[in-house]
Amino acid sequence: MESLYVVKIGGNVIDDEEKLSSFLKSFASIQGKKILVHGGGKLATNLATQLNIPQQMIDGRRITDAETLKVVTMVYAGYVNKNVVAQLQAAGCNAIGLTGADGNAIQSHKRTNANTDYGFVGDVDAINTELFCLLLEKNISLVIAPITHDKNGQLLNTNADTIAQEIAKALSSRYEVSLIYSFEKKGVLLNAGDESTVIFAINPTYYSQLKAEQKIFAGMIPKLDNAFSAVNSGVKKIVIGNADDLEQLIEGTSGTTIVNE
Amino acid sequence: MESLYVVKIGGNVIDDEEKLSSFLKSFASIQGKKILVHGGGKLATNLATQLNIPQQMIDGRRITDAETLKVVTMVYAGYVNKNVVAQLQAAGCNAIGLTGADGNAIQSHKRTNANTDYGFVGDVDAINTELFCLLLEKNISLVIAPITHDKNGQLLNTNADTIAQEIAKALSSRYEVSLIYSFEKKGVLLNAGDESTVIFAINPTYYSQLKAEQKIFAGMIPKLDNAFSAVNSGVKKIVIGNADDLEQLIEGTSGTTIVNE
Repeated sequence: MESLYVVKIGGNVIDDEEKLSSFLKSFASIQGKKILVHGGGKLATNLATQLNIPQQMIDGRRITDAETLKVVTMVYAGYVNKNVVAQLQAAGCNAIGLTGADGNAIQSHKRTNANTDYGFVGDVDAINTELFCLLLEKNISLVIAPITHDKNGQLLNTNADTIAQEIAKALSSRYEVSLIYSFEKKGVLLNAGDESTVIFAINPTYYSQLKAEQKIFAGMIPKLDNAFSAVNSGVKKIVIGNADDLEQLIEGTSGTTIVNE
Repeated sequence: MESLYVVKIGGNVIDDEEKLSSFLKSFASIQGKKILVHGGGKLATNLATQLNIPQQMIDGRRITDAETLKVVTMVYAGYVNKNVVAQLQAAGCNAIGLTGADGNAIQSHKRTNANTDYGFVGDVDAINTELFCLLLEKNISLVIAPITHDKNGQLLNTNADTIAQEIAKALSSRYEVSLIYSFEKKGVLLNAGDESTVIFAINPTYYSQLKAEQKIFAGMIPKLDNAFSAVNSGVKKIVIGNADDLEQLIEGTSGTTIVNE
């Protein structure tokens, strides 16, 4: 099967024009089929502040009232998505920016939670693999903003990590998918404060051992649990590492690689 | 040749949730291939006001400085475009929202004008007919926000009427294109203040006569000159009329029809 790279960029890259520009040049240079999933949380928070729309976060999730939904739609689907696409075009990478509403790319439902009303937040139901493949087969790269829809006209703010993972899983029947989570750390660290303690590779056995010995930073456990769920669902590998090293993450010479064997 | 409808919606529809919702249901019900081009000027002005970004208009054109470009990108490509797409999906019309940067759909260059610096405003150079046809052939309707790019990474604010016309012209080699300009008036009026004086049809001979007799509202002349330029470039017909009557405009039973014969 042909390779496909699904790359999630973390917030700190989006907020930094210089870092973003350098990252996008690396992304554009990836040979073959590729999808970029972005957020833009800090820029959304900035705009909400300017507009006097109070922001509430619970466990790192943004409570999305109607006014905040407008803000994230403008920032993620408008400002960030279109500037990323224009920069990729300039770098010779033909890209199209999509939200989940576009071509019904990603359908979701509004999250219901007995304890917390997250507002207009979506949990993913379905990825339109036919649309993704139609565009990828024309060598068009996709840039996905973390806004989905419920097919009843409602846009929904949706976690970008989850979107990247659902896309990777859904397309793994058609491509050999590598899912790259790029952020500000060099990878999964044994010691959260020490960048020299990057774990090069984790398989299920080693992961159980790390957890049993409580050697892994607690905040990483939900991310790693998700990663193993993805490699159990057909994704070939997941690499977690620094956005500055995208080419090395693709080659597997930097970051932490998660495999199912 | 198969029919294609290119519909431009005017600003007053975009600003009015109820009108927009009703309009989009009519648009969704159009049988066959269709493209919607929208603006969103008043919403952009409102956001600019909230953000204390002064707006300057010259001859109805927005001077687009860097901050204003951010605003129009957020409003047109984000808020308006994605809400329109979500509503069309709810109405059973599979649609994708695009700016000119997406898939290099519409390439432009920054306007240079010896007298006025319009800022980040684009004049259209090329329509990517291959991309438009790829999506239309899959029965995906397109929703175009009036933001283009110069292929060097710069987004450019671009007149939506012009975009609609350039798309109509470019696709007229592949489809029998009807271009519909829907706005708040019932059509081209002999007497600007009197909605009962709609001209049903104008051909070049009649147009020359109307101009010679100064029977046409001066503000309409540039629009009509553009319309005749389009029908001279292969567009089958242009209909100008009220957005509330979209179905009748499509049928040719309302509005003013401009033809080249």
